[in-house]
Amino acid sequence: MDMGEYVKVAVDAMGGDNAPVEIVKGAVEAIKESDKVKVYLTGREDVLKKELAQYTYNQEQMEIVPASEVIETAEPPVMAIRKKKDSSLVKALNLVKDGTCDAYVSAGSTGATLVGGQVIVGRIKGVERPPLAPLIPTATGCSLLIDCGANVDARPSHLVQFAKMGSVYMENIVGVKNPRVGIVNIGAEEEKGNALVKETFPLLKNCPDINFIGSVEARDIPAGAADVIVCEAFVGNVVLKTYEGVGLTLMKKMKEGLMSSFRSKIGALLVKPALKETLKAFDLEQYGGAPLLGLKGLVVKTHGSSKANEIKNSILQCIAFSEQKINEKIKEKIMTDEVVSGQEN
Amino acid sequence: MDMGEYVKVAVDAMGGDNAPVEIVKGAVEAIKESDKVKVYLTGREDVLKKELAQYTYNQEQMEIVPASEVIETAEPPVMAIRKKKDSSLVKALNLVKDGTCDAYVSAGSTGATLVGGQVIVGRIKGVERPPLAPLIPTATGCSLLIDCGANVDARPSHLVQFAKMGSVYMENIVGVKNPRVGIVNIGAEEEKGNALVKETFPLLKNCPDINFIGSVEARDIPAGAADVIVCEAFVGNVVLKTYEGVGLTLMKKMKEGLMSSFRSKIGALLVKPALKETLKAFDLEQYGGAPLLGLKGLVVKTHGSSKANEIKNSILQCIAFSEQKINEKIKEKIMTDEVVSGQEN
Repeated sequence: MDMGEYVKVAVDAMGGDNAPVEIVKGAVEAIKESDKVKVYLTGREDVLKKELAQYTYNQEQMEIVPASEVIETAEPPVMAIRKKKDSSLVKALNLVKDGTCDAYVSAGSTGATLVGGQVIVGRIKGVERPPLAPLIPTATGCSLLIDCGANVDARPSHLVQFAKMGSVYMENIVGVKNPRVGIVNIGAEEEKGNALVKETFPLLKNCPDINFIGSVEARDIPAGAADVIVCEAFVGNVVLKTYEGVGLTLMKKMKEGLMSSFRSKIGALLVKPALKETLKAFDLEQYGGAPLLGLKGLVVKTHGSSKANEIKNSILQCIAFSEQKINEKIKEKIMTDEVVSGQEN
Repeated sequence: MDMGEYVKVAVDAMGGDNAPVEIVKGAVEAIKESDKVKVYLTGREDVLKKELAQYTYNQEQMEIVPASEVIETAEPPVMAIRKKKDSSLVKALNLVKDGTCDAYVSAGSTGATLVGGQVIVGRIKGVERPPLAPLIPTATGCSLLIDCGANVDARPSHLVQFAKMGSVYMENIVGVKNPRVGIVNIGAEEEKGNALVKETFPLLKNCPDINFIGSVEARDIPAGAADVIVCEAFVGNVVLKTYEGVGLTLMKKMKEGLMSSFRSKIGALLVKPALKETLKAFDLEQYGGAPLLGLKGLVVKTHGSSKANEIKNSILQCIAFSEQKINEKIKEKIMTDEVVSGQEN
């Protein structure tokens, strides 16, 4: 295969709780699973060479890009991006900026990825604010929760762009035809909501190129009430984190319950395989990382606790993103818009 | 027992999905369980008489207050309160206003209860905004989520009052000594958050009469990270509803999993009693209704889907509220405050 045909993914090999071991392992698994992808691992050369030495894989699909520094999770993002030019995270972002790579994957600092994505990779022309948009599991499949990023207090025009970018993603990556777009609200009626929602609602309603279905109550999100769940980042973060927290606590409680008597322990052995299968379908980590949409390349943030499997999925997800030309489609949708509003004015 | 000693509770017998059957049943169960409470049922006299005829109970503890109208859940609250003066909901609120009753319980329209509570019963002097504050289950017990009401876009001073009122409630009703107060945020660091949280954080930090522990991420709420969870109503609603939604969907998925094979079905029979016991501890409805704090009487809103047990618990909860003189304590805490800030200015 000609190298030019690879989807090239820069992977921050030093970012995350389980770096570099699980990151390198995930990268190797990704190139073993697909011959369409090439991984550029950024990080300390000696460390990464040693890790890679454990595996056999197609050498042509893997490259190390040396980086001597590491950005820690607790560091103030803006400062970290500015000072640590030779960090694995900044190096990986620069590979996308200079066109060497199509995409970026990191389990490192969320803040640094969000800031660096905007500052180094840069926004697509017309995009006002790039949203972080994880897929979350629902009773019927999955939904895109957009925005869960760090830029809170959004304006209505941002939310409209989120709805459009989210629709492109769900239609082309997840394969949902004419995805239903809902806005997170505290009631189903149009007159309900806070100032932001009330102002955004009519804009979404009058948006011709999305399938807006109105308000979605948080209670109905897990049931799969909409495919694209639009909200301001603070609210999105609260939904996502409550999702995770309730799931974790319920699982813990259930395990305690199952271990509470001899009778239930026997039963637990019998139900375990079936339960495991069901609960896997409700695992937030199954979908790989969350894309930061609207940037000139693909920037993917995975959980800080990512293991090899999530890293692999995140890398493989970049192939579909590239093949489906998501960014070209987002650009088109945002541009059309500008032309339309230009004519209106 | 002398009638003057009763805690008197006005119960909207026509409000909620299961009215009047379950409401009346819950009221009867409450007076059977406690001889400290007297219930005033508001609603259509003929209907309520017929319902009550099924039970034997101490007649002295039950009274019917005729009301010919019913406020429906979908009605615009302000209009409903104004027009339907002879509704069971308005009649019940008026019983608190005129001093006949100490407390009000309704499973009817949330909006009408919130509006009516403020307009008819009225706020305690100094209280800027009355928050709706449900108890939510956690891994270690329960937390008070304050505010989940309908008044969104709160100001920092509102949130400070929520923290105080919530502390009084948790200390005196739930019995948590020196309750830990946290503010819902998207990160643990002080500099994180939206404009409202950033402005409120230092005010809470400098508040001498609460035990402020800083930011709480939504992910940590189910684990029991704080006793009083302070947030603006839109955010509180999103936390509460996501809590409910994830719980419901996970339970449904689990049941499907347990019924998926012969082996798991046998196991399910064995684990059922233990699981039921565990999950009961994580049931949002176990705590009865949510109080609307800061009003001149106690106003309690229960789930629209409330059955007799939740109504009973909500009525019994009014006894502790009255005995512990919560409103006097709230008044004191808010007043002291005014004096202090008065001296400062």
